[in-house]
Amino acid sequence: MTEPLRVALLGCGTVGSAVLRLLDEQGADLAARIGRPVEVAGIAVRRPDRHPGVPAHLLTTDAHALVTSGDVDLVVEVIGGIEPARSLLLAAIGAGKSVVSANKALLAEDGIALHAAAADAGVDLYYEAAVAGAIPLLRPLRESLAGDQLRRVVGIVNGTTNYILSRMVETGAGFAEALAEATELGYAEADPTADVDGFDAASKAAILATLAFHSPVRASDVYREGISAVSATDVARAAEIGCTVKLLAICERVSDVAADGTSTDSIAVRVHPAMIPTTHPLAAVSGAFNAVFVEAEAAGQLMFYGQGAGGEPTASAVLGDLVAVARNRVAGVAGPNVNAYAGLATRPMADTPTRYHVSLDVADKPGVLATVAAEFASRGVSISTVRQDGRGEAATLVLVTHSAPDAALATTVARLREMDAVRAVTSVLRVEGLT
Amino acid sequence: MTEPLRVALLGCGTVGSAVLRLLDEQGADLAARIGRPVEVAGIAVRRPDRHPGVPAHLLTTDAHALVTSGDVDLVVEVIGGIEPARSLLLAAIGAGKSVVSANKALLAEDGIALHAAAADAGVDLYYEAAVAGAIPLLRPLRESLAGDQLRRVVGIVNGTTNYILSRMVETGAGFAEALAEATELGYAEADPTADVDGFDAASKAAILATLAFHSPVRASDVYREGISAVSATDVARAAEIGCTVKLLAICERVSDVAADGTSTDSIAVRVHPAMIPTTHPLAAVSGAFNAVFVEAEAAGQLMFYGQGAGGEPTASAVLGDLVAVARNRVAGVAGPNVNAYAGLATRPMADTPTRYHVSLDVADKPGVLATVAAEFASRGVSISTVRQDGRGEAATLVLVTHSAPDAALATTVARLREMDAVRAVTSVLRVEGLT
Repeated sequence: MTEPLRVALLGCGTVGSAVLRLLDEQGADLAARIGRPVEVAGIAVRRPDRHPGVPAHLLTTDAHALVTSGDVDLVVEVIGGIEPARSLLLAAIGAGKSVVSANKALLAEDGIALHAAAADAGVDLYYEAAVAGAIPLLRPLRESLAGDQLRRVVGIVNGTTNYILSRMVETGAGFAEALAEATELGYAEADPTADVDGFDAASKAAILATLAFHSPVRASDVYREGISAVSATDVARAAEIGCTVKLLAICERVSDVAADGTSTDSIAVRVHPAMIPTTHPLAAVSGAFNAVFVEAEAAGQLMFYGQGAGGEPTASAVLGDLVAVARNRVAGVAGPNVNAYAGLATRPMADTPTRYHVSLDVADKPGVLATVAAEFASRGVSISTVRQDGRGEAATLVLVTHSAPDAALATTVARLREMDAVRAVTSVLRVEGLT
Repeated sequence: MTEPLRVALLGCGTVGSAVLRLLDEQGADLAARIGRPVEVAGIAVRRPDRHPGVPAHLLTTDAHALVTSGDVDLVVEVIGGIEPARSLLLAAIGAGKSVVSANKALLAEDGIALHAAAADAGVDLYYEAAVAGAIPLLRPLRESLAGDQLRRVVGIVNGTTNYILSRMVETGAGFAEALAEATELGYAEADPTADVDGFDAASKAAILATLAFHSPVRASDVYREGISAVSATDVARAAEIGCTVKLLAICERVSDVAADGTSTDSIAVRVHPAMIPTTHPLAAVSGAFNAVFVEAEAAGQLMFYGQGAGGEPTASAVLGDLVAVARNRVAGVAGPNVNAYAGLATRPMADTPTRYHVSLDVADKPGVLATVAAEFASRGVSISTVRQDGRGEAATLVLVTHSAPDAALATTVARLREMDAVRAVTSVLRVEGLT
């Protein structure tokens, strides 16, 4: 044990406070695991008067001076948002500090540039806490599966929307009612847009896709639909076909085979609600839990499950990274960096193969099913299952398609809405995980 | 890209062949991820004539010469067993080679000594494939959770016994019948002792406990009961109380608080069949799958799920390690080593807190329940639930205890067997995961 490693902490909210507490409580263990003790050099906050529990001499409002100080070895960033986090991390990296961040928005926006800066400076950039909180997920993708070829990563990565959907399934409530309950219980923020409209999940999907496929994916490349349009009818229809409804972040490799037999790979990255079979491992992930399902060429199916948010679980992930970068610092090296060597293109949603469930109210007379089926067939969409229930003059038609380009499915549904024989399209949701 | 890293492969059975195939197929990707290409320098086998698919010039019977050759940078060991694997790995480490192993028996027997040798030599020793096949588990324990304090690790880590128990639950078959089916289908080996009697799971438990608690645990320190005594009655009784039966590997930290308020921690490591609630995340893990449930102070509950065996999944884990040690070699460093700094003692099973389920056939007359209950109470065991079903002259008594030292529970059960009022003890199994 020689002199301590000095850590600068940026931000001292829920996660930052939990990091400080754990650093204090587990100091001796951390020192044994790292080979040197860890000491807090300073904590940058906006309003020092709001942190009465923190030693005043550690607090500073000059974050830039802190992260570039010669007295600091490692920087932990838990302030979130793009700026000033980006400038501060670049300044820290430029000054030779290794960095741990929990900032999903920043990593999803500028991860590749930050990694390039870290590689140039020979320092570490780790951010396990940015996706799925405490669940060890990014390190397994970066390292454990580094010898394998990933096919798909499918995750429930937003606890707020998972709570809302779980409640809709359990109680039959509509979206607005379930959201109101989640807000009241503190599971949804006053402005729930980032969660409910899928922005948070899209950031995480971009980070996962970048790591899984060694290719540059930004949040803006991710196709995104939130859950505000999911209805109690959608949930009921899902149950009728043995499914439940989840907001999924899906990253997958798609191969196009040309006429001459050569194939070109691209990656499809999307966030949208989907019906999944109740027998799928992700179906049982309820409430505020997160889980990520991975399919790899050799490893087969894997799943990672745990708490996706909260101060303590997130702090656990931050500290795991802190131990890693501290060990590297003690060894005088940087860990393996992330790059986008594969450079696979992101595939437009229109060309991404998906499957649809469509429920229709139709007139119960001869020829309606044939007309509807012809509409799918005209765009090359084949139907996997169909169920027709007559109810006097009207009938309900429930269809699940085979896989087809999303645009062909969306266009078919738009056409169905205009058909005379179709009284109403009562539920449309993509289906995932059916065999 | 400079000159290739040269890999020696020890063993070329199912896993070794899969490693060779993946190295060949994914050569370009691996080179991009590592920064240098990887090349096979040689393959040590016992009988070169049995490997017609492998280039003959790579095969050798002189494993020792291969692993110490100046032409080799990294060694992959997939031969299994204690010797000659131990001598070969020590020779390789002594010659400055980093080592990847899938050898659970060896790591469970001599892991700490091998780690010490690796630390002395400044080389890496990785063995993700030794526990739970393709599931990234050891790296998360070694690294992702390095900033947290682990409470418990509970795993289904043997696919053969999990398949047998799953079939017993599904079909109501007894152990012998389910084992015969597993043997016929190739899920159990001709001599199933290592799996069925829990030796394989005990090795994995020792490795998990060592990593989770930074303390030296060997396979011989692990309390072990296999599944051959699990009966169709046990399985039926489990279902009656909302449980299923699994062979669990359990590693947990136990605190003893002295009269003066100071507490001493020790670790309890055990493998035995247990009833777990069907709502527990591990209950749904069926067939040949593996899963490991982790409870940590800050991270809370985590679960890792995937394929625990098979050539390809195991090879995926080996290659992930190979990329890690190769990256370290390119950077001229060794990764974080494992040590047993915490030095926690292993707790005897007799003193380990457990809960029991006990089913009895008793005479249906006044005072029997009181006598049975007094027997538990006399050893300080309190009863959580009891159900008595009268059937004419006889009655069935089903008890679930609260937590108590295992010896107190075992002694009580032995005493019950001798009581006049007890006609038969029809089922005894420990219970885990009940709240």
